[in-house]
Amino acid sequence: MELVNIRELYRNQEEYLDKTVTIGGWVRSIRSSKNFGFIVVNDGTFFEPLQIVYADGLENFAEVEKLNVGAAIIVTGKLVATPQAKQPFEIQAEEVAIEGQSSPDYPLQKKRHSFEYLRTISHLRARTNTFEAVFRVRSLTAYAIHKFFQERDFVYVHTPLITGSDCEGAGEMFKVTTLDLDNVPTNEDGTVDYTKDFFNKPTNLTVSGQLNGETYAMAFKNIYTFGPTFRAENSNTTRHAAEFWMIEPEIAFADLKDDMILAESMLKYVIRYVLEHAPEEMNFFNSFVDKGLLDRLNHVLNSDFGHVTYTEAIEILEKNNDKFEYKVSWGCDLQTEHERYLTEEVFKRPVFVTDYPKEIKAFYMKLNEDGKTVAAMDCLVPGIGEIIGGSQREDDYDKLLARIKELGLNEEDYGFYLDLRKYGSTRHAGFGLGFERCVMYLTGMGNIRDVIPFPRTVNNCEL
Amino acid sequence: MELVNIRELYRNQEEYLDKTVTIGGWVRSIRSSKNFGFIVVNDGTFFEPLQIVYADGLENFAEVEKLNVGAAIIVTGKLVATPQAKQPFEIQAEEVAIEGQSSPDYPLQKKRHSFEYLRTISHLRARTNTFEAVFRVRSLTAYAIHKFFQERDFVYVHTPLITGSDCEGAGEMFKVTTLDLDNVPTNEDGTVDYTKDFFNKPTNLTVSGQLNGETYAMAFKNIYTFGPTFRAENSNTTRHAAEFWMIEPEIAFADLKDDMILAESMLKYVIRYVLEHAPEEMNFFNSFVDKGLLDRLNHVLNSDFGHVTYTEAIEILEKNNDKFEYKVSWGCDLQTEHERYLTEEVFKRPVFVTDYPKEIKAFYMKLNEDGKTVAAMDCLVPGIGEIIGGSQREDDYDKLLARIKELGLNEEDYGFYLDLRKYGSTRHAGFGLGFERCVMYLTGMGNIRDVIPFPRTVNNCEL
Repeated sequence: MELVNIRELYRNQEEYLDKTVTIGGWVRSIRSSKNFGFIVVNDGTFFEPLQIVYADGLENFAEVEKLNVGAAIIVTGKLVATPQAKQPFEIQAEEVAIEGQSSPDYPLQKKRHSFEYLRTISHLRARTNTFEAVFRVRSLTAYAIHKFFQERDFVYVHTPLITGSDCEGAGEMFKVTTLDLDNVPTNEDGTVDYTKDFFNKPTNLTVSGQLNGETYAMAFKNIYTFGPTFRAENSNTTRHAAEFWMIEPEIAFADLKDDMILAESMLKYVIRYVLEHAPEEMNFFNSFVDKGLLDRLNHVLNSDFGHVTYTEAIEILEKNNDKFEYKVSWGCDLQTEHERYLTEEVFKRPVFVTDYPKEIKAFYMKLNEDGKTVAAMDCLVPGIGEIIGGSQREDDYDKLLARIKELGLNEEDYGFYLDLRKYGSTRHAGFGLGFERCVMYLTGMGNIRDVIPFPRTVNNCEL
Repeated sequence: MELVNIRELYRNQEEYLDKTVTIGGWVRSIRSSKNFGFIVVNDGTFFEPLQIVYADGLENFAEVEKLNVGAAIIVTGKLVATPQAKQPFEIQAEEVAIEGQSSPDYPLQKKRHSFEYLRTISHLRARTNTFEAVFRVRSLTAYAIHKFFQERDFVYVHTPLITGSDCEGAGEMFKVTTLDLDNVPTNEDGTVDYTKDFFNKPTNLTVSGQLNGETYAMAFKNIYTFGPTFRAENSNTTRHAAEFWMIEPEIAFADLKDDMILAESMLKYVIRYVLEHAPEEMNFFNSFVDKGLLDRLNHVLNSDFGHVTYTEAIEILEKNNDKFEYKVSWGCDLQTEHERYLTEEVFKRPVFVTDYPKEIKAFYMKLNEDGKTVAAMDCLVPGIGEIIGGSQREDDYDKLLARIKELGLNEEDYGFYLDLRKYGSTRHAGFGLGFERCVMYLTGMGNIRDVIPFPRTVNNCEL
């Protein structure tokens, strides 16, 4: 079908003004007078809708008049400038073909619906202004991330989702199985007989692709992953989902400083890309979702991120312990309230906190010379707290092995990982960016359920 | 660290010739003479390696001489043109810093290893020529697909991996659970008590994002998915994996013809992108993996894809039934041997087979006016067979409901899907591209296990 996208009409209007065009889209609202009327139609390609004027010259005028919100129509007519009106142009309809009727019980009538309600109709909510904006920005953000890394010749690696290992030894995992749960086969001693399972052993859904990613960084120097990740944590918060997407770059011949430079450039690149490619959506968020959003993002673009060591951060926070629910002291993990205080009140911009106590960080992080801290970094941003967590990796075989043993991890499971330190080990570092947190940060949306098309959370797996 | 990528040296050599540069990489081979030697080093950013010349002026000459294949080094020296040699230039080393030693038991010595053997060391195989080429092309292919759709303003949608429905009612699925398999909680009647499970009901890994994707096409007009998909099928072939990636575009206000135009443009775009961005890798495949690959791909770029209806295809194939293991007749599903015969022998180029009998296709495909066939299309390509399967979707509420009932599907499970036909239904179509098959097609690699970084197949879930 020869339809023109409404985006195209807005972006290249000179080409189409005073010409006959055909568009297809869905009725957002309709107003009828005696012998003419207006339809506001959106085709999903552009945030701003398009006004259609129709009159009783139409063959099916009586039918068009009675259209319900949500109906699909194909309109042919002249695109005419409307210098006196809010919108730049409208179509004077010569033909309105009705593709699909709607009905008066259409759940998205022209009024404000609560996010809670819209979550119950996840198959329809992308047809509202807010979610149209959210999910276009989500798409553009994903692409900006790919573009950033590909322009720098990073290799995109698909790390596996189903895994036989538990990676970081942290995070509760979902089991994956083809066994009949009604009748689990067992060995003589009563334990599960995994030889009957698809993979011949217990398997889970991954909590991180990092260790696999590292093996590829040792081949390609610079790689990134971008894929789904899972947590079976029973945490019902606005920031946690059981299924989410994560970006994990890994760079070889690189240290923690290189890692932070990469993270900062990436965030700025993505912000710039979204501001440039979705100005209408970003203005909408700024006006209706999070006033001050654009100022904040522009401020980030124009500032160097702050840097502070964990030890220095604790000193700052301890002086303000009266402000916190959880009091801090050296050795404790930072809570969101502390992270936000640092980035919002102290630095007033994104800040990297580095060199955390080894006890609160993962086994693979490089031990600093003080023997107490590791070369880790968290990037904290206003409004969110931690958005990125990364580290330089322990590249010394003996130190890594010692740490694996110290923590009681199964050495055999990490044979492949130790091999990387045996054959051509080199300084390397990487980080993880929670994709949904990034979208929340860019849009000002406050609940992770509202930036995932079909969110999965405790007790919730609809559609 | 201020290192220059070897890719950069090759692509912009004029800028670097006769200047001092520093590179980091891994030793692919080393040859020593009495007081000088050669190291071939690869840093993973470029397919061609770089030759380093070192001499006994080096402080650590004795150590460098004894380097093993696989060691990581950082080399500083002058980049000098070598017009007499095979390679365009070399580095005359002023300094060779050893980042990480390797050892004589390094599994990738400079000799040919079988793909079978390399599958047993999936954490190291990307360091070989073949797999370096495969996984760079995989990365570029993924990006080309994103780029193609984003340039056309398609919205990228992340459809869920964990699902409470079985989507097409087809394909064996992996179960996802947090229940203790050693001790599955049961109801009084002995059935599994799913109220104790994470999502409060049985859940599986998705076999397709299409139905979810359609809900977004009804909001954004043009969308695509690109994510992992799972099949718990016990098929141990060179073309099946339990975990693979799939691309599923969906276009509204569009019919089967539009769908085929989209598929053809996408495949050509991706071929062109890869030929342009990985010429060294593609030449390598053409010489060592699949002679004739480049001719075939270039031929595809320059031909219009063929079109044939299923009914016509059966007529052609029936005349050649003596050539096939499975004899064909109207109503049967096409096997790979038939598909390859059509595309390789009859059409000698990619071909779309359309309008299949409704009995062998999914419930959601649009019924043709003959009442017997549906508006489906499969795209067959030489060397592979089916690479794309798509259809126009049934957009008529009553017909879709009738088909759901006819097939004994649970109407309630499809309430959201029927809603799309109730509120602003419109012609729409889409297809699925198996990403790994696409990479196999582009590289000539014959086994799906060799185009997935860490493949998951029956009884195999390593690393």
